[in-house]
Amino acid sequence: MTKIVDDPETFASAALAGFSRVYGRYVRLVKGGVVRATAVPRGKVSVIVGGGSGHYPAFAGYVGPGMADAAVAGEIFASPSTAAVARVCRNADYGGGIILGFGNYAGDVLNFGVAAERLRAEGINVRIVTVTDDVASAPADSHLQRRGIAGDFVVFKVAGAAAESGLAIDDVERVTRLANARTFSFGVAFGGCTLPGATEPLFTVPKGMMALGLGIHGEPGIRDARIVPAGELAKLLVETVLTERPAGARRAAVLLNGLGATKYEELFVLWGAVESQLQAAGVDLIAPEVGEYVTSLDMQGCSLTVMWLDEELERYWLAPCDTPVFRRGETFATEPAAFKADADDEAPTFGPASGASRESARCLAGILDTMVSVLSEAEAELGRIDAFAGDGDHGQGMRRGANAARDAINQAVASGAGAKSALAAAGDAWADRAGGTSGAIWGLLLRSWSSAFADDTAVGDADVVRGARLALDDVMRLGGARLGDKTLVDAFLPFVAALETARKDGLSLKEAWHKASITCDEAAQATAPLTPRLGRARPLAERSIGHPDAGAVSLALIAKAIAARL
Amino acid sequence: MTKIVDDPETFASAALAGFSRVYGRYVRLVKGGVVRATAVPRGKVSVIVGGGSGHYPAFAGYVGPGMADAAVAGEIFASPSTAAVARVCRNADYGGGIILGFGNYAGDVLNFGVAAERLRAEGINVRIVTVTDDVASAPADSHLQRRGIAGDFVVFKVAGAAAESGLAIDDVERVTRLANARTFSFGVAFGGCTLPGATEPLFTVPKGMMALGLGIHGEPGIRDARIVPAGELAKLLVETVLTERPAGARRAAVLLNGLGATKYEELFVLWGAVESQLQAAGVDLIAPEVGEYVTSLDMQGCSLTVMWLDEELERYWLAPCDTPVFRRGETFATEPAAFKADADDEAPTFGPASGASRESARCLAGILDTMVSVLSEAEAELGRIDAFAGDGDHGQGMRRGANAARDAINQAVASGAGAKSALAAAGDAWADRAGGTSGAIWGLLLRSWSSAFADDTAVGDADVVRGARLALDDVMRLGGARLGDKTLVDAFLPFVAALETARKDGLSLKEAWHKASITCDEAAQATAPLTPRLGRARPLAERSIGHPDAGAVSLALIAKAIAARL
Repeated sequence: MTKIVDDPETFASAALAGFSRVYGRYVRLVKGGVVRATAVPRGKVSVIVGGGSGHYPAFAGYVGPGMADAAVAGEIFASPSTAAVARVCRNADYGGGIILGFGNYAGDVLNFGVAAERLRAEGINVRIVTVTDDVASAPADSHLQRRGIAGDFVVFKVAGAAAESGLAIDDVERVTRLANARTFSFGVAFGGCTLPGATEPLFTVPKGMMALGLGIHGEPGIRDARIVPAGELAKLLVETVLTERPAGARRAAVLLNGLGATKYEELFVLWGAVESQLQAAGVDLIAPEVGEYVTSLDMQGCSLTVMWLDEELERYWLAPCDTPVFRRGETFATEPAAFKADADDEAPTFGPASGASRESARCLAGILDTMVSVLSEAEAELGRIDAFAGDGDHGQGMRRGANAARDAINQAVASGAGAKSALAAAGDAWADRAGGTSGAIWGLLLRSWSSAFADDTAVGDADVVRGARLALDDVMRLGGARLGDKTLVDAFLPFVAALETARKDGLSLKEAWHKASITCDEAAQATAPLTPRLGRARPLAERSIGHPDAGAVSLALIAKAIAARL
Repeated sequence: MTKIVDDPETFASAALAGFSRVYGRYVRLVKGGVVRATAVPRGKVSVIVGGGSGHYPAFAGYVGPGMADAAVAGEIFASPSTAAVARVCRNADYGGGIILGFGNYAGDVLNFGVAAERLRAEGINVRIVTVTDDVASAPADSHLQRRGIAGDFVVFKVAGAAAESGLAIDDVERVTRLANARTFSFGVAFGGCTLPGATEPLFTVPKGMMALGLGIHGEPGIRDARIVPAGELAKLLVETVLTERPAGARRAAVLLNGLGATKYEELFVLWGAVESQLQAAGVDLIAPEVGEYVTSLDMQGCSLTVMWLDEELERYWLAPCDTPVFRRGETFATEPAAFKADADDEAPTFGPASGASRESARCLAGILDTMVSVLSEAEAELGRIDAFAGDGDHGQGMRRGANAARDAINQAVASGAGAKSALAAAGDAWADRAGGTSGAIWGLLLRSWSSAFADDTAVGDADVVRGARLALDDVMRLGGARLGDKTLVDAFLPFVAALETARKDGLSLKEAWHKASITCDEAAQATAPLTPRLGRARPLAERSIGHPDAGAVSLALIAKAIAARL
C-alpha cells in the first residue's frame, strides 16, 4: 500500500518529476512524459512508448540509447491523453518517423490512435504497434486481441535496437510486429494493489490463493488456484507459455517479471526451477532477465515471458542499450542533446467568427456550465457506481474534464471564437485534463459534435442533431465499442436514434431532446445485467452484476440536465 | 509476505543459486556465497562483503569489477557461519589481502571476526571494517557502535573502487574507514516483513503510523509517529541526517533507499522533496541514487543516506563499476576468470590418538546424542520462547546445529579421533550448519571446551571444569556479551562458577554438575525481567517482558540433561 504521497491527484506526475531529477543524464521531463536527454542522430526512427503510470520501470525507465526515445505517462493506471501523446511525440521526432508502442488497452488504443491521426495530419509518419502478449486474455487464434503485460519490455527492447541500428520505419515496424507476434506471457497474482491515497486495495485475492492470468490493473484472470510451491509454480508458468511455441522455435529471450511486491529473492528461487524446466523442454535461453520490468504498484505476483527468437530478433535483443533500468553491452557516448524549447501544444487561436456563431458559442458555454454543475453534484455517486466494476475514479475524471472544458470554452468565447471552434477547444481541454478512456471519449464526442457547426453561422436545430450522429459515429469508430459492451455507447446510441426519430416526427428540438434523454436514461439503467457475462469467475466481475455502467449513467445525467435547460 | 517458496529452510540458498544462474556473467556460486566470475589481477586487494540474506541486492548484487570481489550470505536475517566466511574468502583471495566489510551486528561481528582470526593464521592479511551508519541506533559520540543499514552500499562502493584502483591494503582500509566515518543514514518503516514460510510478520507497525529509526531486521527504533505527507517526511529525513554534518562539508553522495515494499514511484515522489531540501541546505549532490539497495524482505519503508565526500572519496564514489545491480561509467572487460577448483573446507583429518582419549571421545559422542534428544524434544518450546523477542528460530537452529555436531563427532570417532579433535570437529560442524549467532556461539563453546582436552590422554574431571571456564571466557570475549545482557552468558557464567565452587568443596563431577545445572536453570529463568529495559517503546520489545532468553534456557536444558546422564 502506498504510504509516501503528497497529493494523490498529482502522485503520478510527482513521481515522474522525481524520476527525471534522478536520471537527468538519460531523460528530460516534458509535460506528460520524458524524452531522451542524449543526442539522437537526425533521421533516426523514434520509438515512443507509454501508457498509464504505476508500472515503473515501464515506461519512463526504458528511455535511453538503444531502447526508447520517449515515454508518455498517464495518471495511475489511466491512459495518457491524446494531447499528451501528441506533445511528447513532437518533442522526440527526429524526422525518421515514429513507432508508437503500447500495451493493448482500450484507453491507450483510443488516445494513441487519435494522437497518431493528428500527428499524421502534421506530416509525421506514425506507425502503431500494440503489444498483445498475455495468453490468459484471449485464445491463441486472437493473439492481436490480447492485453499487453510484461511483453512490453522485450518488444520495446527489440524495437529500440532496430531503430538504433538505423533501419527505416517500414523495417522497424516489421521487426516490432514480428517481436510481438512471437512473444507470450502468463502471470499469477497473490494479492491486489492499492492506488495512492486509497485505503483499500483495488481488488483482493483470497488468502492462500493465487489468481491465474490476472491483468496488471486487476482485470479478471482465468481462475483462482491454491498457492503451490515454487517448483510447481514454475511448471505452471512454463507449460502455459510453451503451449503456443512456434514449430521449430528453440532460442528464446526469457523474462521472469515481478509485479511489485514480490521480492527479488522470491523471483530468484522461482528462476532456478523455471530455467531448469525451460532447458528440459529444449529451450535455449538467450540473455534471460529476472526482476521488476513491468509492475502494478504493490501487486504481489509475477509473470513469465518468452520471446521466440530468429536471427534478426536475437541480434536486436542482444544489442547494447543504456537506460535508467536496463543496460546491456558497451556503453554509448552520452553527449547531451541540444534542446530546442519544448514543442508544447500551441495555445488555441481562433479564426474570424460571425456574431451569430459567437452567440451560439455563448449558449454552448452555458451548456458546459450545466454539465459542470450536474457532474459536480453527481461526482461521489458516479464514483460509487464505477467502483463496482472499475477503480472508482469516473466521477472525479468527469468533473475534472468538464471543468477544463468549461474553462476552455469561456476563454474561447472571450477570444471571440465561433461555435465550432469554441466547442472543439472545449473537447480538447476535456481530453487533455481528464485523461483515461472517458476523458478521451468525451473529448472526441465534443470535438466531433462541433464539426456539424460552423464559425460563420448560428447553430441550427438540425446541426445539433447532425452533430450528435457524427459524435456517435466517431466514438464508436475510434473507441471500438459496440452496443451491448456495457459502455457509454449503450446509452448514446439510443439517445441519438431517439433524437433523430422525434425530430422526424415533428417535435421541437427541446421536446425531442427531452424524449431522447428519457430513452437514454432507461438504456443506461439497462446496462446493469442480471447475470454474469463472459463466464468471468473473478470476484471483481461478480461485483459488477446488477450495477449500471458509470459512463452510460453520466451521459444520461448530462442529457437530462441539458433537457431541463433548453 | 513471501509467497514463492519451496522449502523455507533452504529459501536463502535457493535464492542465491537462482541469482547466480541469472548473473553467471558476474558471479560464480560457492558454498555460502558468490565470488566474481570475471578475471581479477593478481595482487589486488579483495573486498569481501556479506551478512544475512533477505537484503537483496545486498550483498550478492554488489559483486563485480569496481565493487565487491565476493559476498557471503547467511540464512535469512542470520549471520553466515564462520566456516562460510572463511571458505568464501579463500575463494576470492588474490594475494593482496582482504577487506571484510559488513554491517555492525553481533552475529556478523562474531562470525566474521572468528573467520578473520582463522584466515590470519593461514597467512592471509585480513582487515575488518564494520559499517555503522544508522544514526538512530546510537548517539553521535558512539558512531562506531551504530548498526549498519543502507550505508553498506556507499561504503562498499568506495572500498571496491579503492581496491580496483590498485591501492595497497593499508590504504584501502583507511579509505573504507573514512567512508564509514563520513556516512550517516536515517530510516522509517511503515510496516513489517514476513520470513519465508511464516504466516505472520516478524513485527508490525500500527496502522497509520511509521516507526522512526527502525532497524532492517525490525530492531527497535526511536519512536512511532503518524505518517506524514512526502514533503514532511523528506524534511524529517534530511534534518535528521544533516544533524551530524561535518564542519565545511558540502559535497555528498546521497542514497534514497527503499526497504522492499515501498515502490519506486513512492521513492521518486519523495526524492523530489529530498533533493530540494538538501539543495536548500547547501548540499551539492554528487551522482545520487534512488532505489532498492539494501532491503528487508517485504518491509515497507525507506532511508536516506549521506556520505560526505572529500576529493578522494568522491573519486572512488564516481569510479566505474559493473555489478548485477549497479553500473557506473565505462564498462569493464569481462573476461571470465580461469577457475581453480573451489577452495572448499578440507574434510577434517585427525592426528594420532591414544586408546584412552578415543574412549573419552566416544563418551563425548554419547553426550552429543543426549543433546540432540533434548533439543529435538524442546525445539517447539524454544521457538515459542524465542518468538517473544526474536524471530522464533532458536529451537530450529539448535536442533540443526546439535545434529550436525553429533554427526561430525560420530564420524570423528569412527576415524579414530581423540577427545580434543572430536569435540573440536563437533563444534565446527555446529557453527557451520546452524548459522546465526547461536550457531557461532555453540561452535565456539564446544571448540574452546575441547582445548582443555588432549588426544593422547583420557578426559579427566578437572579437564571438564577447566574446559567450561575456557569456553565461557571465549564466548564472552568473542561474543561480546556481559552478564545481564539477557543472553546465554547469564546462565553460563553462574553454571561455570557453581561447577568450580562445588568441585572445590569436594563434590564429585557428577554431583557438582548436577548442582551447577540447577543454578544454571534458575539463572536462565531469571533472565525474564519484570519491567521493560532500555526505555524501548516498540511492541516487539514489550512482548519480551517476562519471558526468559531462549539461549539461556536451551543451555540450562542441555546442562540438566547431561547431569542426568553423567
